[in-house]
Amino acid sequence: MAANGSIPTEQWAMVVEKKGGPCVYKKIPVPRPGPDEVLINIQYSGVCHTDLHAMMGDWPLDTKPLPLVGGHEGAGVVVAIGELVEDVKVGDLAGLKWLNGSCMACSFCQQSDEPLCGKALLSGYTVDGTFQQYAIGKAAHVARIPKGTDLKSVAPVLCAGITVYKGLKESGARAGQYVAIVGAGGGLGSLALQYARAMGLHAIAIDGGVEKQQACLELGASAYVDFTTTKDLVADVKRATPDGLGPHAVLLLAVSERPASVFDTVTRMITIKGSYVGNRQDTAEALDFYNLGLIKAPFKVVGLSKLNDVYEMMHKGQIVGRYVVDTSA
Amino acid sequence: MAANGSIPTEQWAMVVEKKGGPCVYKKIPVPRPGPDEVLINIQYSGVCHTDLHAMMGDWPLDTKPLPLVGGHEGAGVVVAIGELVEDVKVGDLAGLKWLNGSCMACSFCQQSDEPLCGKALLSGYTVDGTFQQYAIGKAAHVARIPKGTDLKSVAPVLCAGITVYKGLKESGARAGQYVAIVGAGGGLGSLALQYARAMGLHAIAIDGGVEKQQACLELGASAYVDFTTTKDLVADVKRATPDGLGPHAVLLLAVSERPASVFDTVTRMITIKGSYVGNRQDTAEALDFYNLGLIKAPFKVVGLSKLNDVYEMMHKGQIVGRYVVDTSA
Amino acid sequence: MAANGSIPTEQWAMVVEKKGGPCVYKKIPVPRPGPDEVLINIQYSGVCHTDLHAMMGDWPLDTKPLPLVGGHEGAGVVVAIGELVEDVKVGDLAGLKWLNGSCMACSFCQQSDEPLCGKALLSGYTVDGTFQQYAIGKAAHVARIPKGTDLKSVAPVLCAGITVYKGLKESGARAGQYVAIVGAGGGLGSLALQYARAMGLHAIAIDGGVEKQQACLELGASAYVDFTTTKDLVADVKRATPDGLGPHAVLLLAVSERPASVFDTVTRMITIKGSYVGNRQDTAEALDFYNLGLIKAPFKVVGLSKLNDVYEMMHKGQIVGRYVVDTSA
Amino acid sequence: MAANGSIPTEQWAMVVEKKGGPCVYKKIPVPRPGPDEVLINIQYSGVCHTDLHAMMGDWPLDTKPLPLVGGHEGAGVVVAIGELVEDVKVGDLAGLKWLNGSCMACSFCQQSDEPLCGKALLSGYTVDGTFQQYAIGKAAHVARIPKGTDLKSVAPVLCAGITVYKGLKESGARAGQYVAIVGAGGGLGSLALQYARAMGLHAIAIDGGVEKQQACLELGASAYVDFTTTKDLVADVKRATPDGLGPHAVLLLAVSERPASVFDTVTRMITIKGSYVGNRQDTAEALDFYNLGLIKAPFKVVGLSKLNDVYEMMHKGQIVGRYVVDTSA
Repeated sequence: MAANGSIPTEQWAMVVEKKGGPCVYKKIPVPRPGPDEVLINIQYSGVCHTDLHAMMGDWPLDTKPLPLVGGHEGAGVVVAIGELVEDVKVGDLAGLKWLNGSCMACSFCQQSDEPLCGKALLSGYTVDGTFQQYAIGKAAHVARIPKGTDLKSVAPVLCAGITVYKGLKESGARAGQYVAIVGAGGGLGSLALQYARAMGLHAIAIDGGVEKQQACLELGASAYVDFTTTKDLVADVKRATPDGLGPHAVLLLAVSERPASVFDTVTRMITIKGSYVGNRQDTAEALDFYNLGLIKAPFKVVGLSKLNDVYEMMHKGQIVGRYVVDTSA
Repeated sequence: MAANGSIPTEQWAMVVEKKGGPCVYKKIPVPRPGPDEVLINIQYSGVCHTDLHAMMGDWPLDTKPLPLVGGHEGAGVVVAIGELVEDVKVGDLAGLKWLNGSCMACSFCQQSDEPLCGKALLSGYTVDGTFQQYAIGKAAHVARIPKGTDLKSVAPVLCAGITVYKGLKESGARAGQYVAIVGAGGGLGSLALQYARAMGLHAIAIDGGVEKQQACLELGASAYVDFTTTKDLVADVKRATPDGLGPHAVLLLAVSERPASVFDTVTRMITIKGSYVGNRQDTAEALDFYNLGLIKAPFKVVGLSKLNDVYEMMHKGQIVGRYVVDTSA
Repeated sequence: MAANGSIPTEQWAMVVEKKGGPCVYKKIPVPRPGPDEVLINIQYSGVCHTDLHAMMGDWPLDTKPLPLVGGHEGAGVVVAIGELVEDVKVGDLAGLKWLNGSCMACSFCQQSDEPLCGKALLSGYTVDGTFQQYAIGKAAHVARIPKGTDLKSVAPVLCAGITVYKGLKESGARAGQYVAIVGAGGGLGSLALQYARAMGLHAIAIDGGVEKQQACLELGASAYVDFTTTKDLVADVKRATPDGLGPHAVLLLAVSERPASVFDTVTRMITIKGSYVGNRQDTAEALDFYNLGLIKAPFKVVGLSKLNDVYEMMHKGQIVGRYVVDTSA
Repeated sequence: MAANGSIPTEQWAMVVEKKGGPCVYKKIPVPRPGPDEVLINIQYSGVCHTDLHAMMGDWPLDTKPLPLVGGHEGAGVVVAIGELVEDVKVGDLAGLKWLNGSCMACSFCQQSDEPLCGKALLSGYTVDGTFQQYAIGKAAHVARIPKGTDLKSVAPVLCAGITVYKGLKESGARAGQYVAIVGAGGGLGSLALQYARAMGLHAIAIDGGVEKQQACLELGASAYVDFTTTKDLVADVKRATPDGLGPHAVLLLAVSERPASVFDTVTRMITIKGSYVGNRQDTAEALDFYNLGLIKAPFKVVGLSKLNDVYEMMHKGQIVGRYVVDTSA
């Protein structure tokens, strides 16, 4: 193991000790990386709705046995690497994301579909995550962040950004084509609008209210359809495309469990595609667009010790944009 | 117009004169092809469930104003061609299928997605179909059938065959991969099993009962899962694949309106794709496999005048395999 | 046939009467469209190197028997349509391009590869083209130009624009990736740089000289490599990509007959792809980018009667940008 | 490291001690696997032309510094695994192929293009290979061979088989389409014919002589074109396809450095694609077809100590089919 000389033995962390929370702010030992892992001094971490689900334990997927350190969009500096790690160096900037590691050997991993790996490790869920000062990631999967990047503003890109970029990429829409974005005015939506523009796509924003209208148009939407006032949503969306045939793809950021009509799905040959998080290449591409200055995610910074307050606001639906925690405070 | 000299002015047909039927067997005029159309002396026509829907008028899509001649899987001999038609000759064998014509100019047609054309003509539904002795089709869309083909056995390929071939092709499964076929023991299913084998795919047949089991395995299924006796359908299907991860695609020939789970669809990145009928190239490819002798569709022949009896059996769910009507009787 | 009332019976044209030219400026009859054709009052036509080849007869592909009217990037107004034409109206703006028509029935046409059709009609080459005031095109293939478009500036897009857009599209490069453009400073190259930017691609311009350098960077190239001064062209191009591995695709606008190394092509799994002109959908997409104001092609206008002078300059290599002839002068 | 108890410290190997050979049959130490490696008791190894090039040192790519143990299509039993290896167990059957390892981290590896990795390890070329009794491979890359497989007959599949399968897969030809195979009667060709059939493709065999004709037709070629007797090779190949337009793809197993015509490549939109060896998924797929009993590679077995004799015959062009060496003799 190669390591920076100044790694402490203890660190501050927010720990889920019982299902339903709250998190406890306390000192815990600093972990040591295995031969194919890296240890990152996390400086900032975004807070995502999934982190709240991990604490509440209300998803149909088990977390690791408690205690659990949540968090899966963390950015920091590599302070130690295992002996097999070659392409990440101590001192590099790096990010931890939802996909902490995967087996790299199953048929999904062999085909670059690591998010589908049956042995995938999930940061802040099946392994400890980024709400601590020193966190572990498999070297193969940590996000490579260029020197000089502002770590607090890149943090939300590591989850929300990659997720919407992957969705747009999976849609198959090509430069010059139209994509309707449902929920365009929210946190994911505002990132999606920016990625769409960077990819040469025309975005038709769908959301409610005039404030969101203004925000969407400023972020480059070619049209805005307000679902709170439209008389015919489908007709309005079609009208927003030059040939009136409707968009080439729809990115659904606000989902419901209602079934699609079988008759329509068949006769119009509609494809419905689930998109999850990105693989390593998607991560690199999403960060490339960010590094070109094309993607801005509005965020607020609070100390890690205030995480329970963020969850409280999230629970009450009071959050606009993204919260980022500073692990030093 | 170039024409065979012996085209009569009147012909026998089964005509829907009122919604809900029954069809009336009567003499009607022989139509004349327009400049981009061909007139086919239909000798045999398959009978499909859709024809019953057309007569009952119970689909969310209007038919042409009555009277209507149904039928959309007819095979026969070209007897006249319009003056713009170059690549179909009088005397050629040809087939009429569901997609009778399309505008050839919209962005769907420009990209070979003619089935999605907003101006598509549908045989036996929006234009008169194959339950008559002489029927019209747009030259661009009539199926080219090689000389020497047995017309009564190719008829069901023109709808059922193309439909399942298109579904398998759209699935994206590659030679050597596994496809589960739900409803493998039925009419569409038995064709799907044969197309799958011809395409180098391994088919996992899903259906109910030991008779269907035997039929499916004889048609080349690599495994059979009986939904009437299995304790865990999903587990059994997974077990039928070498790596236990389950099939690469599922062809759903028996659909229900139940929604897929959003959580699963997203985290497993599942794609649900509606597949309709084939385009011109799909038609040619489906017929190529048939012409190589790789596809056999069991069928029974009755006279056109007995069509109402076939509908009666169909209504009662008493049909196994396909019925084909002989327009000369 | 539906027609504008004021079509004359005679018109001015530049006619190739003998191989090697020059063209003769003379009055010839106005042609009449067939049932699936349109007649366009050509107002402006770009002049392409191919037109010179057609006159010289020095290509390994025969032209129609002389006399021949050249020209294949013409823009004008539809003045008559055949009786089968539905989606083009008298009064519409329309363009004639290299691909004047195709059989729409062969397996290439069935799969939207009309440029490969064995019966393709080529404007100004196998059928009379756009160096006349009234020219014929198959309705299926004429370019649809939105009302209000400036006809003289769109003319060069109809050949050069579509060609480079098709090349970039065929390259498979995705938004965010890098494409090296060889010959980026020329007429095709300057269009390619603009299309690349509109498609979200990063273009590495390769050409010679500081004037071209400035032009390329102004048109959005992310880097410029000067082949007249570089010590290691390949190394410089690689250096222009963030990971140093080189671009994802290369667009070769200036070709030579030198073979690629078999060893390299195999071990690096290189794909070499010939790209010709666009199909109908490519045409629509290339025009869409133009109509959004993202593509500017510098050009000079001269009277049709001066065409021989343009050929003279072209022959001497004195042309920068595109010449467009005004058919009224 | 987990290991079988009976690994010796010395083993027999054929060693290249000086450029140009011959190999020396001698005892050398048994290597130990690193944490992400496995040690395989190689029982049989195919002999490939590349091995002769490695000994002669006549390729434009350096081998490791001599001494070198050649060989890259070896099959055997895993006898030791590094501590990070999870999905390969001691006692498993496994194969070593050309691609011994790769960095698993560069943008090629991230996208499953491991053969293009700049740090790829090549068996018998940049690392010691399979002409020894105990050889090392990176766990990520060793071929997984099902229990019960005959190791001497699977050996040639590990290089020749994967290579032709990859070529056919890269060709993009779909089930039901036609592929011309140049050199169909040779060792690679006979495997290619079998893979083509297993993939639902029609193969047009191109080679010379009546013996090869018979062999090709027996292996399932739909037609044979004899280049030694044909008057017009291209015409004969076209005639072997139902529509006369020629095959959808050509697999070139016997290459020359002659350039393709630029005019033809462009106007016919031809794609020329270099295909190298397979990635991990290609390997698994090629072995799956073999395990289904669809692929037979004729071979002869000789003792490892006779390798120089095999090279001698290879040098004289006297080899038909594949030679496999038995490392125990």
